[in-house]
Amino acid sequence: MSGPGPSPAELETILTVGSRVPDHGKLAPWRFIVFEGDARARAGEIIANVFARKNPQAPVADIEIEKRRLMDAPLVIAVVSFTRPHPKVPDWEQQLSAGASAMNIVAAAAALGYGANWLTGWFAYDRDVLDGLGLKPDEKIAGFIHIGTRSKPNEDRPRPALSDIVTRF
Amino acid sequence: MSGPGPSPAELETILTVGSRVPDHGKLAPWRFIVFEGDARARAGEIIANVFARKNPQAPVADIEIEKRRLMDAPLVIAVVSFTRPHPKVPDWEQQLSAGASAMNIVAAAAALGYGANWLTGWFAYDRDVLDGLGLKPDEKIAGFIHIGTRSKPNEDRPRPALSDIVTRF
Repeated sequence: MSGPGPSPAELETILTVGSRVPDHGKLAPWRFIVFEGDARARAGEIIANVFARKNPQAPVADIEIEKRRLMDAPLVIAVVSFTRPHPKVPDWEQQLSAGASAMNIVAAAAALGYGANWLTGWFAYDRDVLDGLGLKPDEKIAGFIHIGTRSKPNEDRPRPALSDIVTRF
Repeated sequence: MSGPGPSPAELETILTVGSRVPDHGKLAPWRFIVFEGDARARAGEIIANVFARKNPQAPVADIEIEKRRLMDAPLVIAVVSFTRPHPKVPDWEQQLSAGASAMNIVAAAAALGYGANWLTGWFAYDRDVLDGLGLKPDEKIAGFIHIGTRSKPNEDRPRPALSDIVTRF
């Protein structure tokens, strides 16, 4: 999945759809970080630096891979999740809202004709990387959504049979 | 939002879309319970019985409200979330996958022309109700999605401005 990526107007549409999700109490318990152009490489430097520091024996080739973590697509949107104590809205619902937001970003990108891939990786959970990317201590990554032009048709993978996952009450 | 609800073929489409979500490791950490017809009232009896037992002073009118918790729409789909320990897939990602699934069910119903409302309520968190609905001890409700024909046009509610929730790295 490489370029071209969404236009600025399309990006705005994708982000808008990402913000139109079930959200009990209108808390908006999520935010988005956009990585385009050089920002992807700058983020990769942060990831690679943390990796090199924590893996001092790592070969250069492995560090190079880390530098390119956000380089596969022209656009990466990080969905950041956080929760706020609320008397009527459990953390659980606030977290699910972030999952809904990431899903909507994938769907919006697909509806506009782009490929979209919701990914994580070790660096999505490494506190030093998250600090470097500007996440506050109480913020988590729900996912990095990589968006670009598909280089080949999308093939679906095996999915569970409905008979295995659906019951009638 | 009342009847008519989705046809059997449309319901199958909605459930299929609900199962096509990002799901690291192909764990399918969710399942769906369908409530249609009398099943909605039977579930309401379970909810109301637990409510009455835990609120012995409750007036009859309040108990009647509990009986009708799943009666507002002709179809309710409960999205059930559970996690399994996995060396590469944190519980967090399995939970977000359930949020994505609920979001896709809402989107699929809307795409077919129905109204869909992702709701919870006290009974979504009450262990005795969950037992009565057949949830295992390690299963949680991600949401009850009520689906029917809209009685009036859908008005959007206030949403956060993108400038408040989007940053560029």
